[in-house]
Amino acid sequence: MSLTVIRYHQGMSRWEPNARGRLMQAALELYVGQGFDQTTVAEIAELAGLTERTFFRYFADKREVLFWGAGALQELLVSTVADAPESDAPIVAISAAIQAAGAVFQEQREGVLLRQTVIATNTELQERELIKLASLVSAMAGALRQRGVAEPSASLSAEAGIAVLKIAFARWIGEANEQDLAQLIRALFVELKIVTAS
Amino acid sequence: MSLTVIRYHQGMSRWEPNARGRLMQAALELYVGQGFDQTTVAEIAELAGLTERTFFRYFADKREVLFWGAGALQELLVSTVADAPESDAPIVAISAAIQAAGAVFQEQREGVLLRQTVIATNTELQERELIKLASLVSAMAGALRQRGVAEPSASLSAEAGIAVLKIAFARWIGEANEQDLAQLIRALFVELKIVTAS
Repeated sequence: MSLTVIRYHQGMSRWEPNARGRLMQAALELYVGQGFDQTTVAEIAELAGLTERTFFRYFADKREVLFWGAGALQELLVSTVADAPESDAPIVAISAAIQAAGAVFQEQREGVLLRQTVIATNTELQERELIKLASLVSAMAGALRQRGVAEPSASLSAEAGIAVLKIAFARWIGEANEQDLAQLIRALFVELKIVTAS
Repeated sequence: MSLTVIRYHQGMSRWEPNARGRLMQAALELYVGQGFDQTTVAEIAELAGLTERTFFRYFADKREVLFWGAGALQELLVSTVADAPESDAPIVAISAAIQAAGAVFQEQREGVLLRQTVIATNTELQERELIKLASLVSAMAGALRQRGVAEPSASLSAEAGIAVLKIAFARWIGEANEQDLAQLIRALFVELKIVTAS
């Protein structure tokens, strides 16, 4: 077990002392240590000190362990868009939502980076990731329409937001100096305005 | 066989009289008629009057039949970006590339729509589609960097272009009045500028 994994464990145990958290810890440790494809649900359950049946009470399959946070992320994005001041332009509401997501990733940086190393090794996981991102676009566009924003502005703003998130995220995970993700996101929204103004 | 399929056949036979074209025709007809999952490579080969061995000479698997055009599409996008006037801003070069792609889809509208009905029925195919779109972003960003465009402008412009393409495409396949795709794309680039300016 690498030092990173140990530190991640310590970080997680504070806020996930339950079965789900133990399964997620165990899964991530095995995925990083021996590979995603090589890991069975039985091994995950054993390392977590739980049964396979318990695993399947929480997760549909071993891929879903890595995407469990997607629901919470979507709720955060949608509620931030919904709660933005009425006077905010669509792209401003989207920017607030993406920054809120960035702040969450920043808090959980070590876990997020570990998860990313697993996803980077497996095409199926990358495909699942892209599907989840596409769902986030739909959800945010829906939240904007709820605010009375017409199409195509709603979809364009939502797509632009996820584009910014993807680029900011890629820079952030590659940053040796650990630049703050929410700040990176803010800077990229400014850059997007400049780029599209031409 | 529906009228649409027959018309698509007539449309294709003009420009794809070879084995690859016959296999693509047969595959699409079977995917639309009986479902993607229910279709075997043996059935595709038989309908095309060819052997399974010939099928695998052209396509790695039955998914790839639907994505064979992705390589040509990527070449079109990259070469259009590369050949744009030196004075063109990054987003202008990207807009030209996406419009060029739109014009190709417009020419092949019936085949594109059939292909889309197949993809819409299958999550794996949708995932493959998203992976291909992500590759197009990378390829266009690379073409911009070749023109001396710095990051993150290159990636932002490329992501914005694919976002526009996705939204325009979704409107276009839903349009009863068959609005021209390249025109839809142009209009969306204008709208993107307005949306991001806030």
